Amino acid sequence: MWALYYAPKTCSLASNIALEEVSAPYEAKRIDFANGDQNSSEFLRLNPKGRVPALVTERGVLSETPAILLFIAQSFPDAKLAPLHDPFALAQLLSFNSYICSTLHVAHAHKLRGHRWTDDAHVIEALRKKVPETVGASFDFIEKEFLHGEWVLGEHYSVADIYLFTVAQWIESDGLDPHRFPKVLAHRQRLAERPAVQRVMVSHNG
Amino acid sequence: MWALYYAPKTCSLASNIALEEVSAPYEAKRIDFANGDQNSSEFLRLNPKGRVPALVTERGVLSETPAILLFIAQSFPDAKLAPLHDPFALAQLLSFNSYICSTLHVAHAHKLRGHRWTDDAHVIEALRKKVPETVGASFDFIEKEFLHGEWVLGEHYSVADIYLFTVAQWIESDGLDPHRFPKVLAHRQRLAERPAVQRVMVSHNG
Repeated sequence: MWALYYAPKTCSLASNIALEEVSAPYEAKRIDFANGDQNSSEFLRLNPKGRVPALVTERGVLSETPAILLFIAQSFPDAKLAPLHDPFALAQLLSFNSYICSTLHVAHAHKLRGHRWTDDAHVIEALRKKVPETVGASFDFIEKEFLHGEWVLGEHYSVADIYLFTVAQWIESDGLDPHRFPKVLAHRQRLAERPAVQRVMVSHNG
Repeated sequence: MWALYYAPKTCSLASNIALEEVSAPYEAKRIDFANGDQNSSEFLRLNPKGRVPALVTERGVLSETPAILLFIAQSFPDAKLAPLHDPFALAQLLSFNSYICSTLHVAHAHKLRGHRWTDDAHVIEALRKKVPETVGASFDFIEKEFLHGEWVLGEHYSVADIYLFTVAQWIESDGLDPHRFPKVLAHRQRLAERPAVQRVMVSHNG
């Protein structure tokens, strides 16, 4: 049985929802960031990055959300969470997920993780101030360029939708009015109605 | 025929090498960043992100290096540039590529692209100063956790190696001594000997 290490309010929510969507046998293991669990020697042995998500499988530990999401989709192909045999559509999915992890999530991280890129408290504060602008620009881009249909890939629900739902949790706390992004907001509400999402949100909101 | 939009000294080198490795029919189109080509209305119609790489295909335009690399590998399966049918190995590849795009490349970008995260010139300069430390930490991580064999995935050459070679071009200009990372350095030299890499380097170094 797999084990997913997660922490509330982080991108590990995406991997957790994907595991629920495919009905994978897994155990969800909560990491307490406030307690520094992510830097414990026990956790660092599992994931030397000291971050979540980390998915423990029978063949080893996986990290990085885009990788874990595709792994879950490919391990449970009947759930059809990724267009595995259509190279262009799969690339569109990966392109979206890469944009989330390397642009939107990075913009968001300048709010609480400025220490990654500077040791200066004034610089950290300056980075924090810009977050509504940069995260807002990312959601503007998604609003304009994606979601022409019901889902990120158009007609087909996929792990890209799960990832978007996950980062869309941060809109309000990043200082943005969600009504600026009506398609993203409607998408978030569609996801919130899914039973798999509801089962996971109980533990991530608690 | 596909068209790859690239700019020298950027991560678009990876997509270009992958296209050469699989002998894809494609045209390489150079974008001049100094000239602002990436913000021309013509280019923004192709890629509204105003960035390279952008791969124009018969079905549409793809952006984001991890997506383009897997697209090329999956479109030319005989070249065996990705373990397409082994979900765990493919996830390891995607995890590596996600780490490059969301951590190593982001650290590197704080050198010349600080304006993405602040409008303050002093803050931009502070971010620039930290780059050797953060990029160095990323290469330390790769040196320690990967490259146990000849290639990122161990025995099999893949697009992850092409991506690592690409970002390893930046080691010296990011203020680091490459001999601090002997495995990364040997890997870079192995790649530099490949004919496909040599063909591409001519246009990216010019």
